[in-house]
Amino acid sequence: MPLITLTTDFGEKDHFAGATKGAIYSELPDVTIVDISHNVSPFNIPEAAYIIQNAYSSFPKGTIHIIGIDSELNQENKHIALKLDGHYFICANNGIMSMICAEIMPEKIVEINIHDKIQTSFPVLDVFVKVACHIARGGTLEVIGKTIDQIKPIKNIVPYVNDDKTQIIGSVIYIDNYGNVITNIKQSFFETIQKGRAFEIMARNYTFKTIYNKYSDIVNFEIPEDKRHDEGKGLVVFNSGNFLEIAVYKSNTATVGSASTLMGLSVMDTVSVKFLSK
Amino acid sequence: MPLITLTTDFGEKDHFAGATKGAIYSELPDVTIVDISHNVSPFNIPEAAYIIQNAYSSFPKGTIHIIGIDSELNQENKHIALKLDGHYFICANNGIMSMICAEIMPEKIVEINIHDKIQTSFPVLDVFVKVACHIARGGTLEVIGKTIDQIKPIKNIVPYVNDDKTQIIGSVIYIDNYGNVITNIKQSFFETIQKGRAFEIMARNYTFKTIYNKYSDIVNFEIPEDKRHDEGKGLVVFNSGNFLEIAVYKSNTATVGSASTLMGLSVMDTVSVKFLSK
Amino acid sequence: MPLITLTTDFGEKDHFAGATKGAIYSELPDVTIVDISHNVSPFNIPEAAYIIQNAYSSFPKGTIHIIGIDSELNQENKHIALKLDGHYFICANNGIMSMICAEIMPEKIVEINIHDKIQTSFPVLDVFVKVACHIARGGTLEVIGKTIDQIKPIKNIVPYVNDDKTQIIGSVIYIDNYGNVITNIKQSFFETIQKGRAFEIMARNYTFKTIYNKYSDIVNFEIPEDKRHDEGKGLVVFNSGNFLEIAVYKSNTATVGSASTLMGLSVMDTVSVKFLSK
Repeated sequence: MPLITLTTDFGEKDHFAGATKGAIYSELPDVTIVDISHNVSPFNIPEAAYIIQNAYSSFPKGTIHIIGIDSELNQENKHIALKLDGHYFICANNGIMSMICAEIMPEKIVEINIHDKIQTSFPVLDVFVKVACHIARGGTLEVIGKTIDQIKPIKNIVPYVNDDKTQIIGSVIYIDNYGNVITNIKQSFFETIQKGRAFEIMARNYTFKTIYNKYSDIVNFEIPEDKRHDEGKGLVVFNSGNFLEIAVYKSNTATVGSASTLMGLSVMDTVSVKFLSK
Repeated sequence: MPLITLTTDFGEKDHFAGATKGAIYSELPDVTIVDISHNVSPFNIPEAAYIIQNAYSSFPKGTIHIIGIDSELNQENKHIALKLDGHYFICANNGIMSMICAEIMPEKIVEINIHDKIQTSFPVLDVFVKVACHIARGGTLEVIGKTIDQIKPIKNIVPYVNDDKTQIIGSVIYIDNYGNVITNIKQSFFETIQKGRAFEIMARNYTFKTIYNKYSDIVNFEIPEDKRHDEGKGLVVFNSGNFLEIAVYKSNTATVGSASTLMGLSVMDTVSVKFLSK
Repeated sequence: MPLITLTTDFGEKDHFAGATKGAIYSELPDVTIVDISHNVSPFNIPEAAYIIQNAYSSFPKGTIHIIGIDSELNQENKHIALKLDGHYFICANNGIMSMICAEIMPEKIVEINIHDKIQTSFPVLDVFVKVACHIARGGTLEVIGKTIDQIKPIKNIVPYVNDDKTQIIGSVIYIDNYGNVITNIKQSFFETIQKGRAFEIMARNYTFKTIYNKYSDIVNFEIPEDKRHDEGKGLVVFNSGNFLEIAVYKSNTATVGSASTLMGLSVMDTVSVKFLSK
């Protein structure tokens, strides 16, 4: 049974996501549809890029991912379909795929050209669903588009390193449901520059000298549970997607606060790493 | 495999939607359940009517739509099941279906009368699920209810036209996830009154003289991308459901603002169209 | 086809829920996955306990429930799997299951011990999914863990009764999507203490002397509809989960207000019942 995922900025209230699923079931009765997220902030391409990068690889090879963000067709915003890492992606050529493509080379990219048959103000429903069902039935990308070599990049996804490699200047790319602050500094990148040196991670006026393996490593379990004050403590980890993350132990933005609210960190803010000479 | 959709005001946090799905799977192991929306504002019948009208027709004929809004049974709020346009709808007789029924005549309406066997404070779970599974197994509406001729209307769903047909007085019926403002003026209605005349659309102190085909038609692509200031510009389109919509290009209520926030437009506000003599 | 449900504090925006589903489909192509809730407040164990208790029993026997709240493995927070009432539950041993286990004795509890093979910062994805798929394929609990006798309790889930049984001191355990205020006083518990006596239910400075069968029982249908003022009236019912609930007729926190907002009632607040001598 083919698997189609949806990542959009449709929100959870409107009819858009439901109608899209209805259109898929109308074409393909035997399909499994999985929502990855409909709560990408409207038109926020870096957020969508972060979410799809972290979700897609858990799915089986052959899964078809529809990404519906800023997908209205116009002369500067074409529709594309990609095969990459054994998965298919259908989206607008607006930078969403550039984060994944920076790490893994696409096997095939096509610019979708079935639009002469379709006039639409709801391209996810009318174009992306058609392409997804075509692929799900075993159709090739060449039939629905013409091969292209390159996709549009998004800016500022890779952190900056100074010339003598003593500093990484990264930035916040995502705030998650726990208010954890996720940077664009990946573990492999960090370790390549680090070469075993000690470091200081700086975000606003906070400095961290340790990267923990997991959130609860900040807890001293030798102190009795009712005498501890670990909730609300800041710490740094590489998260499950291998991004450097500034977190708060058992954070809750609405109650005890979170890394984002307590440290005043937002998307686009700078997070830097200074490596100390040995 | 039968297809059952859910449109409710249960929200996404509570157990209501999950329990409803569990009850369906307990009766019918081989069924596909699709969430249309659980985020209708509590007891908001016009919102639910707008959402289901725009979602249902994308689904295959034979789909069964459960609508759980204000569904507690009492002497003024009976439960009904309808067949319309090849689809089945199960809901309370509180006006939700009157928007669809204004355009398409139901083939069959029954007032559900299986309640003598069921005492419940959760009618969606205990009554609507039973009816849906009955229909999914091929059962007829007559078995679970007695035929009725009419359903309860909702007020103010059709715009007002003045006697000499120079003006339409419509109103805002829905604000979507992008903060776009959707009126009760449908394209076919508009064009019937317009008869090719020029027009002015007025909402608060804003006036629009053009209806675009799509959102990005407001962009002048001859200006270089970094010199444009199109995000945040107001415009009017007929949306994918054919309703007259006041939108803002690439709107985001939380950041650049939206038609709703920037123009101060809310549900129930007046939007009028003045037709100019040729 | 096996049925796996998800109850987490992942939220609806991040990739966590989508990635978890992808991992399940990667192991088990033929499975039905149902979201119960991803909107439990972060790390809020009593909320999760309330939601899963009210949802699980609608599902067919044999359903496997993954509960992903505060599930990072450490020396004080082990992973467990239970069989109870014909259902399977996989979660951290942090109190989530103690509400259900207070009413129904588990058939089997194991502490999961497959972690020596798995190093992870995303235990729901890497551990709970593996255990769920093992159970779904017919595997036994003994294979993935060692049997234990007891689970960790949560405090304050049972209301207090005074010595001469004239008073119940309960507390608010949940506020639902309608702003209804749900207490820890269950109908069976109430009736056992009540023994037919009249009563007064007190919450802040509000007193209720009647428990209604359903919300609309507060409406006097003899008054014409346009002359009634029932929306916004407070009342008490036993809800569909048989918990004593303080509600407001047709409440909407964002518009007319709700029991929570109008009466200023929050989770942990006291709700008491005084029984009157006959």
